[in-house]
Amino acid sequence: MEEENKEHITFKISPELIEQVQEIIAAGNRSEVLKFLDEYHYADIAEIIDELDFEDSIYIIKLLDSEKTSDIIAELDEDVREKILENLSAKEIAEEIEELDSDDAADIIAELPEDRQENVIAEIEDAEHKADIQELLAYDEHSAGGLMAKELVKVNENWTVTQCVREMRAQAENVTRVHSIYVVDNDDKLIGRLSLKDLLIAADSAHISSVYIPKVDSVHVDEHAEDIAKLMQKYDLEAVPVVDDDHVLKGRITIDDIVDVIKEEAEKDYQMAAGITQVVESSDSILELTRARLPWLFLGLVGGVGAALIMGDFEHMIKDHAVLFFFTPLIAAMAGNVGVQSSAIIVQGLANDDVKGSINNRLIKEMLLATLNGIILAAFLLIFVWIWEKDIYTALAISASLVIVIIVAGIIGTFVPLFLNKRGIDPAIATGPFITTSNDIFGILIYFWIAKLILGI
Amino acid sequence: MEEENKEHITFKISPELIEQVQEIIAAGNRSEVLKFLDEYHYADIAEIIDELDFEDSIYIIKLLDSEKTSDIIAELDEDVREKILENLSAKEIAEEIEELDSDDAADIIAELPEDRQENVIAEIEDAEHKADIQELLAYDEHSAGGLMAKELVKVNENWTVTQCVREMRAQAENVTRVHSIYVVDNDDKLIGRLSLKDLLIAADSAHISSVYIPKVDSVHVDEHAEDIAKLMQKYDLEAVPVVDDDHVLKGRITIDDIVDVIKEEAEKDYQMAAGITQVVESSDSILELTRARLPWLFLGLVGGVGAALIMGDFEHMIKDHAVLFFFTPLIAAMAGNVGVQSSAIIVQGLANDDVKGSINNRLIKEMLLATLNGIILAAFLLIFVWIWEKDIYTALAISASLVIVIIVAGIIGTFVPLFLNKRGIDPAIATGPFITTSNDIFGILIYFWIAKLILGI
Repeated sequence: MEEENKEHITFKISPELIEQVQEIIAAGNRSEVLKFLDEYHYADIAEIIDELDFEDSIYIIKLLDSEKTSDIIAELDEDVREKILENLSAKEIAEEIEELDSDDAADIIAELPEDRQENVIAEIEDAEHKADIQELLAYDEHSAGGLMAKELVKVNENWTVTQCVREMRAQAENVTRVHSIYVVDNDDKLIGRLSLKDLLIAADSAHISSVYIPKVDSVHVDEHAEDIAKLMQKYDLEAVPVVDDDHVLKGRITIDDIVDVIKEEAEKDYQMAAGITQVVESSDSILELTRARLPWLFLGLVGGVGAALIMGDFEHMIKDHAVLFFFTPLIAAMAGNVGVQSSAIIVQGLANDDVKGSINNRLIKEMLLATLNGIILAAFLLIFVWIWEKDIYTALAISASLVIVIIVAGIIGTFVPLFLNKRGIDPAIATGPFITTSNDIFGILIYFWIAKLILGI
Repeated sequence: MEEENKEHITFKISPELIEQVQEIIAAGNRSEVLKFLDEYHYADIAEIIDELDFEDSIYIIKLLDSEKTSDIIAELDEDVREKILENLSAKEIAEEIEELDSDDAADIIAELPEDRQENVIAEIEDAEHKADIQELLAYDEHSAGGLMAKELVKVNENWTVTQCVREMRAQAENVTRVHSIYVVDNDDKLIGRLSLKDLLIAADSAHISSVYIPKVDSVHVDEHAEDIAKLMQKYDLEAVPVVDDDHVLKGRITIDDIVDVIKEEAEKDYQMAAGITQVVESSDSILELTRARLPWLFLGLVGGVGAALIMGDFEHMIKDHAVLFFFTPLIAAMAGNVGVQSSAIIVQGLANDDVKGSINNRLIKEMLLATLNGIILAAFLLIFVWIWEKDIYTALAISASLVIVIIVAGIIGTFVPLFLNKRGIDPAIATGPFITTSNDIFGILIYFWIAKLILGI
């Protein structure tokens, strides 16, 4: 035991470990498999199962008892879980569900096909757990109701401390972590809280109504997940109670649920910026990956065709000014890059509630910024083209166009996400290929107009 | 009081609120200002101060007592905090520091100029707090030691429960949130834990050595912040104790510190993908924003010049095949987009430890994916160019090149981040303009080679 204590958390999945598991299973000695798996945390076993083939996975799930497998199933990759649950009966799934907290239970049931959902729920024996899960399934998954768990510790303001401690001990058995003790009145309305720390310090003889803190933060069941994430971060809350219109205590949300919301939100924005329309993982199938990537690429194709059509319109210039055409990829790339930079900063600022001041001020600032960047870059380009083509007018035309293109791209990149946000549309769609494509077309059009003007063609 | 309980968390900063605060301060009645601010949470006051001008901010900080201002200062925007601390004496800062937990205190001191750091530390009166802060300042800020707080509740295995509860009550006064009670031996080595829940359920007469759980997860002081974030998420830990080489308990990390690490990491990757070299906010100065954005734009400029040079080399084709030049922005854009998509999925997979299997398998999968996308897109382009130019050979040349360019871009986008990661370099730098630029050049080069081959020029 002494030795075990010395270890930090060091689990690392490896091909060797997976091979070892496969060999032990192949040997067919059930007690050996059990002994081997007993050394691992359920989250580690879930990682192992994610790598095993289907038969071995089902073998492990059927071998272990439901107290452990329920946690494992909750931790699996969604695809793997789907396959495993397909091969369990409604009664077997219900047994796993019995062991889980109401929020995890509802999440797993929600993933099942609709006809199976009812069968599984019908098999749940604990009537209270069943009712809790049914209640949670009714809420939008991105709302407080969809995030919360029904398990919590609550006490009535009219209880004595003795009564309270007895009740709390019973309730605490069902709650994984006790963050706060919520105080309710006879109508189950939330009126305050008792902190465990206060309980540690409080005298044993006190009454609840005299010791509770009558101020408690709460959120409404319909509040959006992202807003709750912001609130819990800002006010440093580790758990927040959820109430309905009548302020009746319905459940509580803990910070670990919020960590998942934050991660998902960040991944969605990141993939959107990279031109991927839905959340995918590198391990997803080629068809899923194509479906996520092709739409944005198609948009890029349309943009490229648009640029080609514009250049076709200026074909008469190609004989005397071929060099103008050589710089179209540069113009398109700069317009795209500046647009993405501007929009990314705005999208991130909006996500953090960090965009203050008016749209006008923001646009003026972006114009100044783009002008500064544009002039620096154009100066380099001017020198290069001058040396290369030995023609100061062409060099001037190309550089001057670059400055204007960068300014316009910066303005579009700033304005579009702000506009979408005002309209209630997720501004993140304005990052990535959408802004790149429109900036490509605008960029090349502006470029040829200005070149034409300066060169007097 | 009853009414206050009915409110959810609804604070929202607005220009009207800021105006109201400015008016109240201008009126010059200190007790009115105090009464007004008393209604707000310190995190709300920090948001208000972030919007006020410097004089008003300092007025509020000097008006409120340090118990409240210390929390406000810890919540301020870094730039605003810097300005305010510049205007406080070392003694005044030390007074704020006294009120903060050791981790927040050390973070704020670390932001000060080096010569001020020592002056402030010298003014801290509480010797233990001072020693704790000095210890924390010595750790790397991205390590467990840099994240942890010294405040925790620990008990000796040889204590009786009575002794333990008495000691815990005293310790709990200094700890914002009690997550776990750590059990140490006479050498201060971590040997186990007591959960508060167990304490609620445990009989009053038990001994620590007989009731503690002799298994406890811990991390080493030198562990990286991102690895700790992954561990705490995977194992659903709300707090984790930090130990040194001898397994002596040095501090603890709580989940709210980890939320910050996750957010920063996600923002860094996002900005990198958007071509911004350092973490900036939309409210930063134009100079800071330029410094973050110009390097990537310059890289894009170099790429565009490279593309122009390549096209210059193929200038002899411009007379008979001008249309080839019209599609160079399309080719460059598609190469860039595909490259960013591929690299983003790999970078995100690496961040989540989700990239399994060999590099070869990954490259083969990406090739298949790119081929599928490429053929679908090329088919559309073929039809368009054929109709537009009425020349099937040119249409074929452009479309075939597009397929090859997309495949190569996919391979580069997959390979480069995997390669950088193997070399211990942050693969996120491979997303955004870096991959776009190299793919632009490769793309256009491949495009002209293949077109030349097919058209037999």
